[in-house]
Amino acid sequence: MQIIRSVNEMQEMVLSLRKENKTIGFVPTMGFFHEGHLSLMEQANKDNDIVITSIFVNPLQFGPSEDYEQYPRDEESDIKQAEKTGVDIVFIPDTRQMYPKKMTIALDVTDRVHVLCGRSRPGHFQGVVTVLAKLFNIVQPNKVYFGRKDAQQAAVVDALINDLNFPIELVALPTVREKDGLAKSSRNVNLRNAEREEAPWIYKALEQGRQLVVDGEKNPDIVVKEVLDTIDNHTNGKIDYVELLSYPELQTVSAIDQQVILASAVYFNEARLIDNLLFDQNGKIVKRIEK
Amino acid sequence: MQIIRSVNEMQEMVLSLRKENKTIGFVPTMGFFHEGHLSLMEQANKDNDIVITSIFVNPLQFGPSEDYEQYPRDEESDIKQAEKTGVDIVFIPDTRQMYPKKMTIALDVTDRVHVLCGRSRPGHFQGVVTVLAKLFNIVQPNKVYFGRKDAQQAAVVDALINDLNFPIELVALPTVREKDGLAKSSRNVNLRNAEREEAPWIYKALEQGRQLVVDGEKNPDIVVKEVLDTIDNHTNGKIDYVELLSYPELQTVSAIDQQVILASAVYFNEARLIDNLLFDQNGKIVKRIEK
Repeated sequence: MQIIRSVNEMQEMVLSLRKENKTIGFVPTMGFFHEGHLSLMEQANKDNDIVITSIFVNPLQFGPSEDYEQYPRDEESDIKQAEKTGVDIVFIPDTRQMYPKKMTIALDVTDRVHVLCGRSRPGHFQGVVTVLAKLFNIVQPNKVYFGRKDAQQAAVVDALINDLNFPIELVALPTVREKDGLAKSSRNVNLRNAEREEAPWIYKALEQGRQLVVDGEKNPDIVVKEVLDTIDNHTNGKIDYVELLSYPELQTVSAIDQQVILASAVYFNEARLIDNLLFDQNGKIVKRIEK
Repeated sequence: MQIIRSVNEMQEMVLSLRKENKTIGFVPTMGFFHEGHLSLMEQANKDNDIVITSIFVNPLQFGPSEDYEQYPRDEESDIKQAEKTGVDIVFIPDTRQMYPKKMTIALDVTDRVHVLCGRSRPGHFQGVVTVLAKLFNIVQPNKVYFGRKDAQQAAVVDALINDLNFPIELVALPTVREKDGLAKSSRNVNLRNAEREEAPWIYKALEQGRQLVVDGEKNPDIVVKEVLDTIDNHTNGKIDYVELLSYPELQTVSAIDQQVILASAVYFNEARLIDNLLFDQNGKIVKRIEK
């Protein structure tokens, strides 16, 4: 496995791989790998000749009061795990490599961002699409892999690829969970013990909401209330949002008659956790999204 | 020579060309070819295995009061000229192909645009970088060719490529001129006869300004005044601007001690003409810009 830290070197490496007609699968990450990341790399390994993963904690996507400094990092362990998972190249640029000078070109996201996490994280997705546009051009992958836990991010990446015609296929894979249902997240290490015990209730609450739809409920407000009440009753977390929206357009719906996302974010003392379920009008879970 | 009108078809064609390891030179245009365009195609032909030119009058880069409808078009003649010049593929998408739906991702240009043409054409370069980001991803060229007549455009494209790490080399070639010095432009056909006779004075005035620098002048204000007065004395056009700026940063300079652009735009009745000279601190013309 190769470790590359220079943008130029990465770009040249990719150009030579493409000359050999190798297909490239790309897993962009902020590091501190858990099974969620590794499941993306495993799938990329099955689908492509070469797997590249990037580790870059992108300052542009953190707000001034957010956890950029606090965001967990463990490069050494990440590199070991990537190697074990069959990754061919780990790209680890530093901030100077990615942002050598003040940028003249700015990217913005005008839709799909005024809901869910976008509402409480102004500028977040602007930072996400900026770094991804750069990484897509540096790594030039055939397929790019994202976890469905960040469902809004996957919806925004879908827009980035389609609107700007990137010749890249987006593969969004299901959330990987702990045995008790808690969605795997790099931020879980920041939970206190008592919080860690309550946290699976976010998933359980979403599942209870989905069960209502399976049982025939079409009113999104009733489903959302069920989830809100359940989280409220079983955790001391502060609920940021519970929302039910069309997917990937992320529009409010008056009735559940299409593919929707039921999503929640909850603040604990040192961690804000997110989770979601994607299902159809009958409450049936949507597996792999690919387009 | 092939004519392609579909984005998907173009993208698939390019992917198969790249599999054969062909190098691709790309000349994006708005059509109505003159020798300026053809000189770009000729150079692209020398530098690459395959030359692709696009013809797309991009509505996004025209202001509401500008000449989008009036912009001259002659597809049939363009196709003939491209074929004669050795172009391999002409890509002619329509607006629905390029903008199938309202975009979620927006590109903006935050620097290099509040001077020269950018000042009187708000939103213009936003439209330019949006269509170019899309075209770069559709055509995936190794090199892209622009004329130096649109020097500010070349400076903005330089920023687009560098800021977003497009794996593309920008080649900016010298302005092609009529015998009397007038810069070739698709808009010249909209000049009245008397205006056509005066129009070469824009170039002559810029040359007079440059001559002052050759003779040792370092003060940009004196050079600019020389150009303003000369255009004013010899044409009935309304001067939009005469500016002397660093290049490609497009910053004002207090003394001419680096590579600069001396540029002007002049309104005639049915045409706004632009022209510029690029020279060093000694007034020596800069030939080919490449990076």
